[in-house]
This record gives sequence, C-alpha cells and structure tokens, in this order.
Amino acid sequence: MRLKNHLRKGFTGGIVFLLLFFLVGAIPASADEGMWTFDNPPIKQLQKRYGFVSTKEWLDHVRLSSVRFMDGGSGSFVSPNGLVMTNHHVAVGQLQKMSNATRNYVATGFYAATQKDELKCPDLEVNVLVSMEDVTKRVLAAVKKGMSDEEALKARRAMIAKIERESLKKTGLRSNVISLYHGGEYWLYRYKKYTDVRLVMAPERQAAYFGGDSDNFTYPRYDLDMAFFRIYENGKPIHSKNYFKWNAHGASEGELVFVSGNPGSSDRLYTYAQLEYQRDYRYPLILNYIKRWIKILRNYAKQGPEQERRALVQIFGLENAKKAMTGEYQGLLDKKLMETRKKQEDDFRKLVASNPEWQKKYGDAWDTISQVIEKEKKVAKERFYRRIIASRLAGIASTIVFYVEEIKKPDSERLEGYHDSQLNSLKFRLFSPAPIYRDMEEANLAGGLQMSLEALGPDDQFIKIVLDGRTPEEAAKELIEGTKLTDVKFRKSLVKGGTKAVKKCKDPLILLARKLEPMMRKDREWSKKYIESVLTPATEKIAKARFAVYGKDVYPDATFTLRLAYGTVKGYPMNGTKAPYKTTLYGLFDRALSFDAKGEYSLPKRFWERKNKLDLSTPVNFVSTCDIIGGNSGSPVINKKAEVVGLIFDGNIESLPGRFLYDEEKNRAVAVHTAYITEALRKLYDANALADELEGK
Amino acid sequence: MRLKNHLRKGFTGGIVFLLLFFLVGAIPASADEGMWTFDNPPIKQLQKRYGFVSTKEWLDHVRLSSVRFMDGGSGSFVSPNGLVMTNHHVAVGQLQKMSNATRNYVATGFYAATQKDELKCPDLEVNVLVSMEDVTKRVLAAVKKGMSDEEALKARRAMIAKIERESLKKTGLRSNVISLYHGGEYWLYRYKKYTDVRLVMAPERQAAYFGGDSDNFTYPRYDLDMAFFRIYENGKPIHSKNYFKWNAHGASEGELVFVSGNPGSSDRLYTYAQLEYQRDYRYPLILNYIKRWIKILRNYAKQGPEQERRALVQIFGLENAKKAMTGEYQGLLDKKLMETRKKQEDDFRKLVASNPEWQKKYGDAWDTISQVIEKEKKVAKERFYRRIIASRLAGIASTIVFYVEEIKKPDSERLEGYHDSQLNSLKFRLFSPAPIYRDMEEANLAGGLQMSLEALGPDDQFIKIVLDGRTPEEAAKELIEGTKLTDVKFRKSLVKGGTKAVKKCKDPLILLARKLEPMMRKDREWSKKYIESVLTPATEKIAKARFAVYGKDVYPDATFTLRLAYGTVKGYPMNGTKAPYKTTLYGLFDRALSFDAKGEYSLPKRFWERKNKLDLSTPVNFVSTCDIIGGNSGSPVINKKAEVVGLIFDGNIESLPGRFLYDEEKNRAVAVHTAYITEALRKLYDANALADELEGK
Repeated sequence: MRLKNHLRKGFTGGIVFLLLFFLVGAIPASADEGMWTFDNPPIKQLQKRYGFVSTKEWLDHVRLSSVRFMDGGSGSFVSPNGLVMTNHHVAVGQLQKMSNATRNYVATGFYAATQKDELKCPDLEVNVLVSMEDVTKRVLAAVKKGMSDEEALKARRAMIAKIERESLKKTGLRSNVISLYHGGEYWLYRYKKYTDVRLVMAPERQAAYFGGDSDNFTYPRYDLDMAFFRIYENGKPIHSKNYFKWNAHGASEGELVFVSGNPGSSDRLYTYAQLEYQRDYRYPLILNYIKRWIKILRNYAKQGPEQERRALVQIFGLENAKKAMTGEYQGLLDKKLMETRKKQEDDFRKLVASNPEWQKKYGDAWDTISQVIEKEKKVAKERFYRRIIASRLAGIASTIVFYVEEIKKPDSERLEGYHDSQLNSLKFRLFSPAPIYRDMEEANLAGGLQMSLEALGPDDQFIKIVLDGRTPEEAAKELIEGTKLTDVKFRKSLVKGGTKAVKKCKDPLILLARKLEPMMRKDREWSKKYIESVLTPATEKIAKARFAVYGKDVYPDATFTLRLAYGTVKGYPMNGTKAPYKTTLYGLFDRALSFDAKGEYSLPKRFWERKNKLDLSTPVNFVSTCDIIGGNSGSPVINKKAEVVGLIFDGNIESLPGRFLYDEEKNRAVAVHTAYITEALRKLYDANALADELEGK
Repeated sequence: MRLKNHLRKGFTGGIVFLLLFFLVGAIPASADEGMWTFDNPPIKQLQKRYGFVSTKEWLDHVRLSSVRFMDGGSGSFVSPNGLVMTNHHVAVGQLQKMSNATRNYVATGFYAATQKDELKCPDLEVNVLVSMEDVTKRVLAAVKKGMSDEEALKARRAMIAKIERESLKKTGLRSNVISLYHGGEYWLYRYKKYTDVRLVMAPERQAAYFGGDSDNFTYPRYDLDMAFFRIYENGKPIHSKNYFKWNAHGASEGELVFVSGNPGSSDRLYTYAQLEYQRDYRYPLILNYIKRWIKILRNYAKQGPEQERRALVQIFGLENAKKAMTGEYQGLLDKKLMETRKKQEDDFRKLVASNPEWQKKYGDAWDTISQVIEKEKKVAKERFYRRIIASRLAGIASTIVFYVEEIKKPDSERLEGYHDSQLNSLKFRLFSPAPIYRDMEEANLAGGLQMSLEALGPDDQFIKIVLDGRTPEEAAKELIEGTKLTDVKFRKSLVKGGTKAVKKCKDPLILLARKLEPMMRKDREWSKKYIESVLTPATEKIAKARFAVYGKDVYPDATFTLRLAYGTVKGYPMNGTKAPYKTTLYGLFDRALSFDAKGEYSLPKRFWERKNKLDLSTPVNFVSTCDIIGGNSGSPVINKKAEVVGLIFDGNIESLPGRFLYDEEKNRAVAVHTAYITEALRKLYDANALADELEGK
C-alpha cells in the first residue's frame, strides 16, 4: 500500500523528525521517471515522448482537483459537491476511530445513502494546494555575508517562519515554506484546509485489502481499495468547481496517464556513503524495531476479538511499513543498484571537478557528508532508542510539555512543529476525540520500553529515568493507569494553563515527559550541531552543483507535497513470464478459490451472493509506469482529458527499490480501475446514488 | 514444459551423444527430494515423513501402469483398454506429423468418438518397464586384473552388448543395460515395446499451451496440457491390466502424492569444476546456438501460413529448451547455489580423505576430472560446430553411412546406437514415413552451416569439406534439392544395399556424409581417449566413494528411466506474495482477458461459446513438491491409493536450477488437475465416451 510511511517519523518529545533525514538534491530524469512539481512540469518530456501538450489551464485544473490527506495519503474531487475519492487504507484510520466493539466499520464497511447519513471524521484534515510562490530570494536574502553556518541557519529559519506567519495572517490559508532541491529553492505553498470531512462510503476491509499482507505491494492484484468522503464547510457540502470527470472505460493498454498526488519521501540522491549507512545501519535498525513491535501487538491482539479489532489498523500500518522497507532494503542489498548509484555519483563528481570554480564551491560536500555519517554511526542506535516509542499517550504528554515552553519564544526561535503557522494543525491532532485504548497503550509502552532496555542496557541514563527501578511492565502499568491524558478536556486545560499548569501537574506521563525534556533537547542540539549546521549545508551544495551541471531539467526528491507523474499503462516481465496490464473480476474469484477462499483470501459474503449479477470481465486493477511512492495512496489516475480512469493504491514489489532508483522496465504503479468501482457500487453495495454522482447522472 | 531436452543431444555423424556427458554419482536425499529407482524406493523416507507404507504390490502396480514415450516424455495407462494419458506437448510431434496444409490437428485438436476413428501415429514408440535385473556383477566380472583402462572399457562394453543381445533373443523385449550411479550399478531393464499407438484425443494447442512461451515454466498456470492415445497389438486395443483408477476430486492441499515417470537427465553431482565448465563454456555455447536457430526458423516461418505451421513444433521445442536452459543457467550464475555445491563437495572430499583406504582408492578422481575439463575447454567450440547441425536429412544420411559400416563389426565393437539390441528402434525412426519439408530443411541447413562458418572460420577443414567454395545458402540449396532421402524407400534400399550401395550412391547428402565420416570418427576417438577412458572411470570412482561414505540411502541422477518421486501438494512464496496450491477456471478466463485475449493468451472459440456451461470453480492446475525434471512430462500424479489425481506437465521457473540442486521451499512440479480434464472432455469437447472410460463408467 502506497501509504506515507509514518514509521519514517519518530516522536522525540513530541518533536517530529524524519528518521531518514538525509534528503539530497535532484536528478536528471529519463523515461517515465519523475515526481514533478506543478511549477516545473515535464512539458518537454510529455511533448517529446507522447506528443502531449500540457496547458496552464490543464495543470491548474489538475492541481485544484487534487487533495492531500494529512493522515498520510492523497485524494481527488470527483464531483462538484465536495465528493472526494481516496483509498480504503487511507481512510482506515478514521474508520477505526469511528468504530467500537459493537459497530465496526472497518470490518463491515459503510454507505451513507443520503447526505444526512454521512459520518463526520474525528480528526481528518484535507488540503488543497491553492497557490505556490517562489520565495527563494527572500529566504536567501536573510543570510548576510560573514555569518557562520549556524547564524545562517538561524536567519533562514527566522525568515521562513516570518513568511509563513505573514501568509497565514493575510490569507487565512495553511501556509508552508517548503525546501525543494534541498535548499536549491524555497516555495511558499498555500493550502485551503478542510477539517469537516465526512465519510460517504467504504467497502469491507476484506474487499479493499483482499490478499492481505501477502499480496500487499504485489501484482497481479484484485483490490477494491477505495473510500469516499465529502467535504463540508459551515455544515454544508462545499461546491468543488474543480473535479475530475469520471471515465468508467478506464485506460487502454499503451495509453498515456498521469498521477497527481503527494509522494511522501524519496532518497534518489543520497550520496553513496549515505546509501551505505542506510544499508548497514538504518534499515537493519528500523526493520528490527518494526518486527518487534508487530510481535507486541499480535500478542495483545490474541487476548480477544475486541483486542484484535483495536490492534488491527496499527498492525496493518506496521506490516505495510515492514514489507515496504524490506523491499527497499533489498534494493540496497542489490549490487547492481548500488553500482549504478556509485557510477552516477562518480560521473557527477567528475563533471564538478572538471570546472575549477565548481570544484572550489562544491567539491568538498561529499567528504563533509561522509564525515557526519561517521559520527552518526556511533550514535544511531542510542538516538533511536532514547525515545518513548510506540505509545500515543506518551507522545501527547511530550507534545504538551514542549508546547508550553516553545510557545513563549519568538516564533523564529521555536522548534519545528511549534511555529504559529503550524499550531492549528498541531491542536487539531492533539485535541482529537479519537479513542485511545488504555490496555493497548500499556502493551505498546511496555514493549517499547523493553526494546529500549535491551538496546541501551540498564545503566543508560534514559533507561534510569524512565524505569526508575521498575520493570518495563511495571512502569507501563503505573504510567498508563495513572494518566488522565485520555481525557481531551484535561489536555486542553494543560495547554491553556501553560508552564504553570504543567509544572504543577502530577500526571505520571507529564512528570516523565518533563524529566526527559532536557535529554530530548540535547538530542535536538546534536542534530543542530551536526545535521542542520554541517550536513544540510553540504547537501545544499550538492543541490547547487547539480543545478550548475545539469540545469533545471530535473525534479526534486519527494516532500509530501503535490507532484505530477506520467506514464504508460503497461504490463511488465515478472517471475519468468509477463504481468498483464490489467486484471479482471474472474481473477478475483480465482485468487480467492485457489486458496479455498480462506484467511487473507476470503471475500465478503455479498461477493458470493451477488456473483452472478457481476460482469466478471470487468477490469479490477491495472498498472502504469507512473513514478510514485508512499504518500501517493489515493491519488487519481487521469487521462489526457483529465478524466479519472483509476485510483492509485500500491506499487508492485519491483518498485520498492524505486526509493533509491527508478527502473522503467519493472517499476509499476497499481490502481483500482474505475469500471470496478462503479460495478461494485451498483451491483454489490446498492450505492446507486453515489455511482450516479460519480458518473454525473 | 517438462519435455526431455533433445537439444542436450547433438547428432555427430548420426551418433547420438549427450552434450552434457559428465553425469556423476548419487547424493543423500533430504526432504521431498529424489527421483528414486523402483528397485530402491524411498521406503524409509515415506514412512518417516508421511507414515506411508509402500508395499511391493503397490510399487509393481505403479510401475506397470506407467509408460515411457520414446518421443521424450512419460505417460500412464488410465483404463483397462490400453488408454494412455500424456501431455499434449509430448503428443505434438506426432500431431504435427499427421497434419498437413489442410488438416492441422495441432491447431484444431482431435477426438475419435469411436475406436475406428483413432489415428495411427507414424513413428511413436511407447515402452512399459516389465522387469529390472541387477547385472552389476556380470558386467564388472568382464574386467580382468591387469587390464588397462581402455581394455577394461572395451571388455565392459562387450559384456553389456552381450547381455542385451541375449535378453532380446530370449524374451523379445527391448533390453537395455543401464548404468546407475555412474558405474556404481548396472541394471538390465526389459521393456515391453509398443509401436502401434493411435491418437484418441488432443485439444487445440491453444488450450493445451495457453500462455505460450511466456507462461511456459511458470505458475500460476491454466493449461489443458493433455492428450490420449490407445495402444494396439495385432490390430486390437491391448488389455492393460495395470492402470491408474481415476479420481476427479484430485488432491487436497497438504496431501501426499507421487509422480511415476522418466526424468531425462540431472546433474546434481557434477564436481565443482564441472559446474564451472557448464557455466563458463557449455551453457553460453548452447544458448547462443539455440537463439540463432530460433531466428532461422522464425525467418522461415514468416514466408506464409503453411511455413508457419511447418516450423511451429520445432520452434516450440527450441523455445522450450531455451527457457529451460536459461533458468538452469541462472542457477549456475547464482552464487548461493554454487557455494552450496562447493560446500557439499568439500565436505564429501574431507570425509573421503579421513579414511586412508578411501583416499588412496578415490582421492585423485576430482583432479583427474579437472584435468580432462581443461582439455575439453580447448576443443569445446570446435567439437560443437564441426557437425551438420539443424538438418534432419543430413542426420539421416550420416546414420546410413555409419550404419552400413558398423553393422559389419562384431556387436561388442560397434559404436553406441548400433548394437543389435538397438537396431529395431533405430530403423523405426530411420524409416519413419513422417513428412520432411525440403524448404524448411534448406533453411535449417543453410542457417546451421552459417553458424558453423562463423564459429570455425573459412579455413577450418570441416568448413572446407562442407562448403567446398560455396556460400552456406548455395551449399544448402544444392544438397537439399539434390537429395532423394525424403523417400523412405530410397533410405531402405541404401541400408539393404550396404557398403556397396552407399559407395556407389551419388546422392549429395550421402556423398557429404562419407566425406565427413573420418572426421566424425576422429571426434569419437577424442571422446574415447579422454572422456570414456579417463573421465568416466574417475566419475565412477566418485560414485563408489559416495557409496562408501553415504551408503545406499541415495538416488542416482536421472537417466530417462522410470523413477518414483513423492511430495506434498503445496503453494510457495513467489515474487513477494504466495503462489496458491491450485488454480481455477476463473483464473483461465482472467489470464486471457487481462491480456485482452490476444496472441498467446487467446482461447479456442469453444471456451467462449461454452463458458456458461462450465463450473468455473473447477481446479485447473496444481503444484506439489515432487522432484521432477525434463522427461517427466506426461507423468501421472497419483495418491496413496494409486489413483490418478493429476497429470505432470511442467515445473515452475524456480525449479529450473533443480538440475543442479533441489530446493524444497520453491521447487514445484506443475500438473493438470483431473477435474479439469473431465470437465473439459464433457462440457467443451463432447467427449463423453472418453470421460466415461476414464471414470470407469
């Protein structure tokens, strides 16, 4: 599932940082490669390869019809009445939050036959990118001659915070200055933000996620991985002027298609030394951690059906991350991929070296990065495990403790995540009424503490503070049983009460978060000292060298902002034979019955009861060469007329090393075919009203 | 397709020799591994792993119900009236020979509703293994003390020829002394031979070979790869007392099943040096040759639909060999496989070295083999291309020229293939009335000569003799246009006329074969000097060392004689997900439609017309861990009650390196499910009489 990988993030005292923070530069794209920004679309490539002319109107329409789900996915408007389409697996977090022991929308699905039946989501934020402004000059002008690296960093940060704050004040829009090409450019992205999002329809998870973890990230595939929401403002559905018209014929083999969505992150421009670090340190560390966490949750889930229900979505997220990262890791272990990347780097460095001016300006960047990495290797494990992992309540406590301190500082001096322009979203998440299950929290926290204990040993200062002589189980029990942070009102009172209230508070998780605060801030200092002040300027140098050598005929690495990918509907060579460009409903029933319709390959009852009503030749899923990655889940696949022909939900197993290198021969984006969506809505779910709305009837 | 690979054989002046002649020893089997002889069945393994007791009666019944197709496959009796089941792709050579421009059984299929409609095959020989006798002592007793290696070889050969001749005379049965464990044992196998074999039923090739070369050697699969023959004697169907009863329920997941058939050759016991030779010399050479030959035939086939029809079966054979050998080659290129084999050898040699007596007797064998291989490397290319390749008529000419000379010698001194006991089969093939197309012959011959010219250069003596100043095209044109060898009567007259007739004959192909005869005999001498007199005794030493070290709890490498394999019906991990243990008819229609039912994925009209009559949940193909290889095509899959539950037709792509090393995790034998056979016979082919006969109604 092409979900944005949340596991790439870790919560350190409520501060979000990327686990894989060495994002670098941009690359010259070949073939159908590229996740292009809308300010620099691949106009030349489309004209040359496909004879297609993308006009400004076309691009604006596509951009304004696309949405971002802050839960970690993408989506699109598919009717003028605020109807938004995305994946079931993007929606499943909200479905879980709206479910309980007796009403399980994850298992049963949901359909609101009329608007009044639509269900409001507890904490879903949806964004539309309404404008993009190049603010590179303003940001760079903040840096004055003679400033040290650290001063330059501070000046730039202050300017970015200022631009965001001013924009928010002026427009009321979510305003983010994003760094593209890693410092090569800065852009102010303004989003229209929606928080009244209501569930319209979701099928049973077993139809959406047919084949389960086994089939995840593979193809041929047979999944109805869809969900529909409607966006409201002031209690009424919005009028979405820009939306994609429905085309139930889908795309033919060989047809040009596009994907407009929000790829989360890619690492195509790591230096070779960075790749080796990922291969030898980072991936083994994270994969081990994920596997352990899955075990913790599976043990918890064994206690009963309600526990199983509670843990399901989190287990899914972890299994999904595990499979994705395992595939990526295979890429890093692949000698051919590594050799190709080595050669790319060697060629690039030779070109830089061939020009004395470039060599002087940029030539030392690679060695600088390697030096930081040597330092990073020594502290990687320690930095990773000196965090309270796997507990949502501990994360909330930490956020509150940091919030009350940060908020007192001038905006420009605050930690990332606590700027004025970010506070609305922070509070939306922090005050979410979504249920948190104490017993699951306790299991997660105990397991997480056990992992940290094993990794760091009993004498580590973090362990001493957290356990304080207790076993992980005892500590988790006391902390979770004693906390009142499940109560949203309590959280709000602490935030409102500020430092004073927090200092007075005897809640055990708040007390712990306060004790850990100095250590967490030290960790941020480490990062500032080595990463932000040394490594980041070096990667920026490489980005600039790249512009100098290759020009701007390139795309930046993914940043969970809107991108346009293009490609051809096309099968590929697979395991000795060919994978077809599409699958059909015949194949769904074959795959189910070939496993005797058991377990991951069972189907909801309605599929068997209504089988004879279905046209079994209906296309189910299809593949294209479009270049996508986690975060693109829920993106529309559109044709030249900007009609929607499919719904991205996954990449094939061969695409996973695509995080590091795109391979047009085998890299495929997997989508639900529009024909399956309407066939299923009408014949399986009696959702004719929704199907009519999609088809503009 | 698990067809015996004829390309592993090359015709050198009509003398058949194995391209890969370094067959070695036996190995201790683990898991579901092994192609066991019926004199040494895996009784212990079956009892231990499956709790199954195989009685003598059970084993005799299975052996006598199994048949060998001399066209290169296996089969079984499936009714008391001589009805034999095998694969379509085993039958396709005969179907082709019975077809012409207006009556194309390959394309249309065939069904004889009554016995009088059954079609006699032109040159199909079918064998039943009726007895096995251990003649090791007799053969070894022929070798006297003090004989040189060469004398020992001669004495042993003379004894083998004698045993075969005596047995033929005494019993009238096809009598072959075969060497198992490469000289460890000699067995006299007696076969009941049938040559009046009639076609009962074959589906359209597009149903049998659905998915074509793309899906060949892969799984999941959806092929109706079946054909039925009936065996006659004296103009009447034989009474086949031993036959497998039909079980249309097939086998369940996890069930124990058996395969009784004739695996052609395996190379599990090459020394490491031999494997390296295969990897670095032999496979690149043969694969290049196959690819070139396919191009030659494809060019020929482009001339028109009749040419396409004529070339189809030969192209299929070449494509099949190419895919099989490419998969095997991948195994050789796989470092893990090679390391495992290296370790096996090192462990074995250490055990031999640990016993001074063993070390003295066997210890030098590996180095001896390596020395021969060094010599072989120098002449490999020359020996390969100093042959008239790719022409059937040139092969016939060569066989006749050798025949008339060999036949004059005492039986014991003749070349392999010309012993008394082998002459019936030789003549059956040599005098086959099957059509030979001059235009295709010419294209093949010209292409083959061109390949030899490029490989050897214009100054090579072979090239000088064959081309004699002409271009390959000119030579081929003159040779094929001038020959009368398409006429079976002419061939017979030469054989009958003996040396005198051959010497007088002015037929250009006979003249050429005579000119080449000395060179061909020299090549045989080379082989005798280095392979048979030096390498073979060394491999025999290794075989004996293996008995000494590991005992007889082992199976010999495959020799196209009857073997028993066993295993479990079971899916496997595949390309990131799971391959199911079976497929269904839903999947057939999915696979067709997912490629828009075009080309290799088209289906005969009747499938579309009668689709609604079919039960689409019918199992189509299934897999088991049984250890098979080329030559097993057409073998029955049977259950513990010796009921037939399936029909072997292929191995998965992961099984191809199994030529060198069996891997239970992924190695799978692919079979047609019995349920699909009867469902298709009744509902698609209106062949109720045949279905009734199978089901004993």
